[in-house]
Amino acid sequence: MNPYITNAAGLFAACCTTVSFLPQAVKTIRTRDTSGISLSMYSLFTLGTLFWLVFGVLSSNLPVTFANAVTLVFAGIILFYKIKYRRR
Amino acid sequence: MNPYITNAAGLFAACCTTVSFLPQAVKTIRTRDTSGISLSMYSLFTLGTLFWLVFGVLSSNLPVTFANAVTLVFAGIILFYKIKYRRR
Repeated sequence: MNPYITNAAGLFAACCTTVSFLPQAVKTIRTRDTSGISLSMYSLFTLGTLFWLVFGVLSSNLPVTFANAVTLVFAGIILFYKIKYRRR
Repeated sequence: MNPYITNAAGLFAACCTTVSFLPQAVKTIRTRDTSGISLSMYSLFTLGTLFWLVFGVLSSNLPVTFANAVTLVFAGIILFYKIKYRRR
């Protein structure tokens, strides 16, 4: 397979999955509606993103480091709001 | 840096981010409460995961292929419920 197609697929994938958490963070900040959001998901996901960041730094992989630093900010915001506005 | 530590961080990260969508899918199926979930996020994320899967297959990368096949199922379920039980 043409490596350009493979790399283009990977780059497009990385952009989509990284950027995807921005509209969720914006929605959560605006509405403070976190009832449908899973605390377990964002706890695990934020922890996982933190370790992807560690992996990116340790392996000197700039795209992995950058993408996960961005995702960590968005996921961290959603997790913070989920904990703060948890259904009582 | 010890490559075992680097790989262990990456493996742990991959497990966390892959498994994290399971509790969200279970919660969404059980409660059908999708009001706080962003349609834009799951549309972009599911598309991104599909392209990660394509990237994994094209680059013959088994861990990437497997992790994203699993995530695609969970993300697809959440997206399906978000569209089906959208706030009217």
